[in-house]
Amino acid sequence: MLKPLPLRNIRIDDDFFAPRIENARNAMIPYMWDALHDRVPGVAPSGCIRNFRIAAGLEQGGFTGFVFQDSDLWKWIEGASYALETQWDDVLDRQMDEAISLAAKAQQPDGYLDTYYIINGLDKRFTNLKDHHELYVAGHMFEAAAAHYAATGKKTLLDVACRFADCLVRHFGPKENQLHGYPGHEEAELGLARLYAAAGKKEYLQLAGYFLDERGKKPLYFREEDIRRGQKVADGSRNQWANYSYFQAEVPVREQKVARGHAVRQGYLLAGMAEVGGLTGDQTLTDAANRVYRNIVDKQMYITGGVGATHDGEAFSLDYDLPPERCYNETCASIALIMTAQRLNRISPDSGYGDTVERALYNGILSGVSLDGKKYFYMNPLEVWPVRCEKRQDMRIDDERQGWFGCACCPPNLLRTLTGLGNYLYSMNDDTLYVDQYVSSHVSVPFETGVVGIRVKSGFPWDGKAEITVETQAAFTLALRIPSWAEKWAVRLNGREISPCPENGYVFLRGEFHPGDAVTLECPMTVRFISASTHTPNYAGKTAVTRGPIVYCLEETDNGKELWNLHLEKSVPETRFEKELLQGVEMVSCPGFRESAGEALYSACEPERTPQKLHFIPYYAWGNRGKGEMTVWVHKAQK
Amino acid sequence: MLKPLPLRNIRIDDDFFAPRIENARNAMIPYMWDALHDRVPGVAPSGCIRNFRIAAGLEQGGFTGFVFQDSDLWKWIEGASYALETQWDDVLDRQMDEAISLAAKAQQPDGYLDTYYIINGLDKRFTNLKDHHELYVAGHMFEAAAAHYAATGKKTLLDVACRFADCLVRHFGPKENQLHGYPGHEEAELGLARLYAAAGKKEYLQLAGYFLDERGKKPLYFREEDIRRGQKVADGSRNQWANYSYFQAEVPVREQKVARGHAVRQGYLLAGMAEVGGLTGDQTLTDAANRVYRNIVDKQMYITGGVGATHDGEAFSLDYDLPPERCYNETCASIALIMTAQRLNRISPDSGYGDTVERALYNGILSGVSLDGKKYFYMNPLEVWPVRCEKRQDMRIDDERQGWFGCACCPPNLLRTLTGLGNYLYSMNDDTLYVDQYVSSHVSVPFETGVVGIRVKSGFPWDGKAEITVETQAAFTLALRIPSWAEKWAVRLNGREISPCPENGYVFLRGEFHPGDAVTLECPMTVRFISASTHTPNYAGKTAVTRGPIVYCLEETDNGKELWNLHLEKSVPETRFEKELLQGVEMVSCPGFRESAGEALYSACEPERTPQKLHFIPYYAWGNRGKGEMTVWVHKAQK
Repeated sequence: MLKPLPLRNIRIDDDFFAPRIENARNAMIPYMWDALHDRVPGVAPSGCIRNFRIAAGLEQGGFTGFVFQDSDLWKWIEGASYALETQWDDVLDRQMDEAISLAAKAQQPDGYLDTYYIINGLDKRFTNLKDHHELYVAGHMFEAAAAHYAATGKKTLLDVACRFADCLVRHFGPKENQLHGYPGHEEAELGLARLYAAAGKKEYLQLAGYFLDERGKKPLYFREEDIRRGQKVADGSRNQWANYSYFQAEVPVREQKVARGHAVRQGYLLAGMAEVGGLTGDQTLTDAANRVYRNIVDKQMYITGGVGATHDGEAFSLDYDLPPERCYNETCASIALIMTAQRLNRISPDSGYGDTVERALYNGILSGVSLDGKKYFYMNPLEVWPVRCEKRQDMRIDDERQGWFGCACCPPNLLRTLTGLGNYLYSMNDDTLYVDQYVSSHVSVPFETGVVGIRVKSGFPWDGKAEITVETQAAFTLALRIPSWAEKWAVRLNGREISPCPENGYVFLRGEFHPGDAVTLECPMTVRFISASTHTPNYAGKTAVTRGPIVYCLEETDNGKELWNLHLEKSVPETRFEKELLQGVEMVSCPGFRESAGEALYSACEPERTPQKLHFIPYYAWGNRGKGEMTVWVHKAQK
Repeated sequence: MLKPLPLRNIRIDDDFFAPRIENARNAMIPYMWDALHDRVPGVAPSGCIRNFRIAAGLEQGGFTGFVFQDSDLWKWIEGASYALETQWDDVLDRQMDEAISLAAKAQQPDGYLDTYYIINGLDKRFTNLKDHHELYVAGHMFEAAAAHYAATGKKTLLDVACRFADCLVRHFGPKENQLHGYPGHEEAELGLARLYAAAGKKEYLQLAGYFLDERGKKPLYFREEDIRRGQKVADGSRNQWANYSYFQAEVPVREQKVARGHAVRQGYLLAGMAEVGGLTGDQTLTDAANRVYRNIVDKQMYITGGVGATHDGEAFSLDYDLPPERCYNETCASIALIMTAQRLNRISPDSGYGDTVERALYNGILSGVSLDGKKYFYMNPLEVWPVRCEKRQDMRIDDERQGWFGCACCPPNLLRTLTGLGNYLYSMNDDTLYVDQYVSSHVSVPFETGVVGIRVKSGFPWDGKAEITVETQAAFTLALRIPSWAEKWAVRLNGREISPCPENGYVFLRGEFHPGDAVTLECPMTVRFISASTHTPNYAGKTAVTRGPIVYCLEETDNGKELWNLHLEKSVPETRFEKELLQGVEMVSCPGFRESAGEALYSACEPERTPQKLHFIPYYAWGNRGKGEMTVWVHKAQK
């Protein structure tokens, strides 16, 4: 079992990520703080802080926003705490104190804290776990509390969270006078486990386990709850709401084999199962999480790391059904996926988990935010034809990033992912440091034998060379993840090639390191033309261009309209780094041709071919130059 | 201006169609008669006849079915009348008399006849023209009346229809005390024009014109009606219901340029415009109909003649958006398309109209009924992956034909198309017979100079030779449509090639014909590989196989699963007639290969290719051998 390396021990100074983290720190955090306070001109008021003020009796009025509006504040605090832990900021610290003391004022004597029910009537609380997100909001509060405590050492939010957790512990459990329910939108499981780790109260971990064990037990709690609320109960049909698979609640979690239902819910459930299973050593739980995780990455994941192939329920579809133009691929769902992968990796280290984190991080997650950090994608399609998005009424794909959302779950999720990026880079145990992502940084590794300083200098994602310099005399093991895309690679110690045979995708260098010892990993980044499994109907005859961890796409801006008429020839792709383009990207250009024909809708004439060079940009950077067509998958000119 | 050749003058004895018409006569007519009487075991009761009995006071109870349930009877009578006109049947004649006298009993003193409002309250009639189909039902009654009168010479239904039409003439019109509305579902326009032709009352034609002229005038009648009914009125957005384009009512019909909204409504509107414009000589009206018709066939029609690219509103989508797997392509919509094409052709003869009739008739319409004539498709997709239809909740494609529908509009529409097939084969004027479709038949052509007997012997759709033998000494002109798919063709008179230069796609043979004169048209049927316009994103890199008028498809039964992995090589297709297969079809086989790969979802390995012969069957015959995959468009193995 590996453990995370504390964020504070990681200083990221990476050419690629540092500016993005700075942007999160300097642009996203203040922007969201203002948004939570309804101070962003032209953006619909969030009402989040106002809800807390009303709940605290400091203001009159009704509840604004979604039942889970509180979670926007908790996620902001989690993200801001990560920022604070890695770089102190008095202003930010005070802003959080302010928000936390407001929340404390809103908290009820028995510890309950959810402004929706405090404002609308506490008698109704816990009566609609299925739809009303109380436990989801609580989970985000707990994650925020753990992060804030770790960042500041202050127990202000931790105490608020524990009081609410104690309240939940009283209300939920096996006893007859307790509720035998569980979250409609999973998150409390993960939050309670993290709160347990921070506050040390085992009841929290037990409750997290209880939520997981009750889920899907017959008779279904949600069904009983629906009946109690007099809600019409559909009989178990294919409808994901009727059979409760939308909530991953149709069968007990240990019996679940494939990803189903709402993708973010599914992801948070898996992360919770991995977290709880890791802390309790419950193998059946982590095996179940791993089984569903494998179904996702083996059969239901887009090449960008996007998950959720249908708008209908923002949900998983069926194995191999991966339409590029009408996927949902919610940014939050990809974040939930890497939260899961990172936890499963700590339980049983394998480079495949890091591959998933890398795939989603550099592609389907980064695409969720504009380069200026001010606009966001909720959905991350792999193919966009704007006129169809606008006119076809069953195509509700965003073809432009938005400033903010009524349901603002993705922006703060991106914030906490960027400011907490360190969480995804390293894992460790008593004597081994696992390097999972190659991001330039200084780390101090608290081994049992003492703290070891490590310097990572990486050229990722554009150059496949990473140099790890040891700054402290120490005996330990360095485990380097070999990315799955690296067809060739070499590991050198002080210039001498050693390249040991990898175990589970990691190369292990054990021994006595001296200050200045330099270990280099070189994985030449070549342009790779990827084919999708022939089991998926969506990509037959097509290829996707990748280079290192980056998935590329074609945009109208560089290639003209009707991208579907472009065919790629694989011979000799050219690559060049464009410093001025899209904040600096490695572009890939390939020979190819464009097919065009006369105006006849159907004709026996073969389309004509005109040679055209295809210019690819990284997928994460698409949509930053105005509205236009985009596609990741391109026709292969077959030989 | 051409006129139709009376059905009774046409005796079809075609190898391909005669058995289908017999099936309609012997299987569909009795089946539907029983269905209308709720006598089909295992099929949800239609309630249609029961509604009439209740409305006539012969039975107690409430209304069953849709607001337009009556139309099922009217369409059945229209179809049965065509059957009767071409071959007398005492039983059928009596069944219609029985139904008509029942309808007469249900008719109100003022002529009103719609069982929905007679049963639910006449005070509400004409208050929801937009949604409640009263005028649609009336239109079908009028078409049935015209057909029944032509078939039997009896005025029983004609009188009922005229009484209702007179009632409408009183209620609708420009006068202040009249309603200035029009049908929410078009059909009355066409019906009134046909009733005018049968009964000779010019008020009916005027009312049809009034409905057409009022449509889309500001202020919108439907919007006013919504407001009167206190229905929430959405402001003019992209939503087709909010802006009334679903009803083709957002602008006056003469200003409409593209097909929009519900596809069947659009088709019946165009047919009505063509019928009224043809009878009144109103060029602006027929030009408008022709303009929208051209938008359909040039930019919004599937290769099978299917129309309606989206389920959302069973509607047209946008130009060139023609997804094969999620189209609607309602059988009724293709029927409405040929009803329009046939009428526009009479106004200004051009073989292109006959091409559309041929395309839809042999493909997207015939596919609507199973080979045994007992099961029906409402939707006619061009690609089916059953597991996706079953599990993906936003894919509601029928992958199997159904026995009957709650909304049973398609089956009787197929019935009237088959029994009335003669309507689509010939047109004429004083001295010219236009042969539009090559279907073996005897016809007597009532020229001014006398009746001329013609014998057509055709090998269509499998063999491109048609022989037209003149049986009467007469001077007239024979106009033969040259199908657009005929890359080579020859016309011979008594064996001597003449092949005159076509005008508007017809070759004209003028002169004195002697009994036994034989004119032959030969258009060799070669396998043609069709490409779609490069403006459509759906078929890039793909081809469709056709031969003569037939569009082909691949089925799982003949080619295995995962049809999307098959790639077609165009070299030397083989064709053979399979007498025992699917009631006898010409099969097409082409060399090709299947791509397959390992289990990895994404991989840099090229899929492997295994040679596989691709076996195509006619699209109309798909789905007659159990559930399975099907596709019309196939990847081209590019050279």
